[in-house]
Amino acid sequence: MLQSTLFGKTQKQPPRDEVSLNARLLTQAGFIDKVTAGAYTYLPLGLAVLNNVKQIVREEMAAIGGQELLMPALQPKELWEKTGRWTDPGPEVMFQFEGRSDRQYGLGWTHEEVITPLVKKFVSSYKDLPLYLYQIQDKFRNEPRAKSGLLRGIEFSMKDLYSFHRDEQDLEAYYQRALQAYLRIFQRCGLEAIVTEASGGSFSKYSHEFQVLTPYGEDVIYHCVQCGYAQNREVTQLMTGAACPKCDGSIAEGKAIEVGNIFQLKTKYAVPFKLEYVDADGTSKPVMMGCYGIGPSRVMGTAVEVHHDDRGIIWPESIAPFRAHLLQLGSSSAVAKRALLVYHKLSSRGISTLFDDRPDVTAGVKFADADLIGIPYRLVVSEKTKANVELKPRRGQTSTLVNQTKLLAALKGKGGELGKQRNVS
Amino acid sequence: MLQSTLFGKTQKQPPRDEVSLNARLLTQAGFIDKVTAGAYTYLPLGLAVLNNVKQIVREEMAAIGGQELLMPALQPKELWEKTGRWTDPGPEVMFQFEGRSDRQYGLGWTHEEVITPLVKKFVSSYKDLPLYLYQIQDKFRNEPRAKSGLLRGIEFSMKDLYSFHRDEQDLEAYYQRALQAYLRIFQRCGLEAIVTEASGGSFSKYSHEFQVLTPYGEDVIYHCVQCGYAQNREVTQLMTGAACPKCDGSIAEGKAIEVGNIFQLKTKYAVPFKLEYVDADGTSKPVMMGCYGIGPSRVMGTAVEVHHDDRGIIWPESIAPFRAHLLQLGSSSAVAKRALLVYHKLSSRGISTLFDDRPDVTAGVKFADADLIGIPYRLVVSEKTKANVELKPRRGQTSTLVNQTKLLAALKGKGGELGKQRNVS
Repeated sequence: MLQSTLFGKTQKQPPRDEVSLNARLLTQAGFIDKVTAGAYTYLPLGLAVLNNVKQIVREEMAAIGGQELLMPALQPKELWEKTGRWTDPGPEVMFQFEGRSDRQYGLGWTHEEVITPLVKKFVSSYKDLPLYLYQIQDKFRNEPRAKSGLLRGIEFSMKDLYSFHRDEQDLEAYYQRALQAYLRIFQRCGLEAIVTEASGGSFSKYSHEFQVLTPYGEDVIYHCVQCGYAQNREVTQLMTGAACPKCDGSIAEGKAIEVGNIFQLKTKYAVPFKLEYVDADGTSKPVMMGCYGIGPSRVMGTAVEVHHDDRGIIWPESIAPFRAHLLQLGSSSAVAKRALLVYHKLSSRGISTLFDDRPDVTAGVKFADADLIGIPYRLVVSEKTKANVELKPRRGQTSTLVNQTKLLAALKGKGGELGKQRNVS
Repeated sequence: MLQSTLFGKTQKQPPRDEVSLNARLLTQAGFIDKVTAGAYTYLPLGLAVLNNVKQIVREEMAAIGGQELLMPALQPKELWEKTGRWTDPGPEVMFQFEGRSDRQYGLGWTHEEVITPLVKKFVSSYKDLPLYLYQIQDKFRNEPRAKSGLLRGIEFSMKDLYSFHRDEQDLEAYYQRALQAYLRIFQRCGLEAIVTEASGGSFSKYSHEFQVLTPYGEDVIYHCVQCGYAQNREVTQLMTGAACPKCDGSIAEGKAIEVGNIFQLKTKYAVPFKLEYVDADGTSKPVMMGCYGIGPSRVMGTAVEVHHDDRGIIWPESIAPFRAHLLQLGSSSAVAKRALLVYHKLSSRGISTLFDDRPDVTAGVKFADADLIGIPYRLVVSEKTKANVELKPRRGQTSTLVNQTKLLAALKGKGGELGKQRNVS
């Protein structure tokens, strides 16, 4: 992609009306634009990152048998009355309104009230179970504190997986598979997530949150620095400096961002919707359910909170909007021609590249923009580089002059991720 | 994909609460499920079709320079007050509601009120123009007549492209490019769209609708059977049997479904949002805009209205959920083994296949389901076929016994489309 035609420009200063680090950097670097508190437009660069996160989520959902579907955001009151959630928590969380013919609607902030009656239509026997269904969709929350950029919005991207089982044992086994899949997703997105015990409601001892430690996290967790065992503040009796009950290591307190949450719902929603199946012995039983949430937009925001320096964002390679950022410095026809050749060569090898071909922009500005945008590999073609290219990883300090063969080898290094990346074209 | 594990089953009868042909067939065949009037869940088969349509749209948008972004559905009242559309048409069309701190929101049914101020942030000079921005997103309408399945919903998928130009001449030139791109999109989706003159509002003579003739269309158009010139009922003075003003051919009246609409907005939204640029001569001028809409979900519904017979859907190859539907008839281990081998061979060649491996389902039911679901190529492996496969196009009458080499050749026929298809995995 030519940077001269890319929609969305970097700004000299971070926006004055944002306090969160992720919103300040993402806005300044041209990834997002605030429409109103808690609702953002994803500009082409931002959408590329969001799509990369979604793609990783899709791959890991497929790997644990997840089938993708898509439910509506708009939901009728009647479904939510069955579980009591139309009024509790009701409008505290859900945007609710009236349409034609006095019909009452709410905007989905979760989808148990849609998926449970849906599954009821197709499940009658134990032979129809288990079942793993997920969607990736924008959700809505009447959020009182929408001041954290992509971390807490009134509209946000969400992957929600629901699993349906014959018995508790099967639910528990799948719950562990989902937990592992979640850890893979966060790892692939460049995040080190700590599995944290959280409240399980009235029907499970614990649910599990996936928490990423950062100085600006809104949550507080207590975690063992040795074995990683952790609990969140709501459920814990652990204290800083105490001994870990699992390994005798030391417990630390840390601020963290919750990037995912998994929950054994058991029969909580099966009961009000009468989601039952006939077991092999001929008896009717309620279906056991689990639910598993990840917010791709929150993952994107968290990646920025974790991976940046004072010059800008440092994207993990797997979710970066492009793999390479090619800077043409100088406008002589020789330099322009060489830069264009490098751009075409990279593109033809499937190495997604943002080509800073902007005329009338100084080298200083191009370098600063490259650091701010945070694409993993910066390449420079100038009078000085002659037939070579100056290569510098965003995460490193050193730049090296390489010929094109070495350049391609360096950029292909992580072949596995590369092929999976979806990018702005 | 194994049909035994696919979520969403065919039903013996069409749903009683649907009147439209597309909703009846898509529900019966397991593509969609109604949550409330005008809002549907896309089951895995349905989501595959919807994604195929979106992918074709994306490719054609990229071909005319479109850059994809993603705006929020949730929009603050303040933006819509600037154009007067908060009250006119206001709640007649827009779902409106209150959130925290007395903030008023509406759900986007179009996005001029978001994209115009967004573009204003990044455009100041003629050098920043032209610009072509689009998104694919769910839109919402407070729809009084949500009885047409995917053709008219309260929540529906929409691609909206907005173009920004220096002058009317540049807008007009791009408008023609977009018109041609639209024709390619519909053609690739298996729809013959007629470019139809429609009201241009107070600032353009005409806008253009893309109309597909079907007996159940809600619109009426007057079109020349010879040259294709057409006008919709609102603007036309043409009459059935009259001579075409363009070619002297004969004018016919027809019911049709509007699948797309393009509009020269000119300065209608640039003026209230003061979207201006400084031209080469140093003067400030309002930016000229165009907007271009296609509903992928409506395209999907229209494809069903047009392509079906009394046994079920007949998907155009380009948007079909799978390319091949492999039926295993009989459960002897020899047949099971041969069917599985064919399935693996097809899958390994990138030919997306739904494999009807269901045990305890009769041949009659499998044949009926295959016709109902409408995948382009039906393949049968049975005791009778021995090492061969019986191949029958859904659109044809004749089945032929082919060996595996011929099978692969036949299914690869339209290589171009095949590679581009995205499917349920």
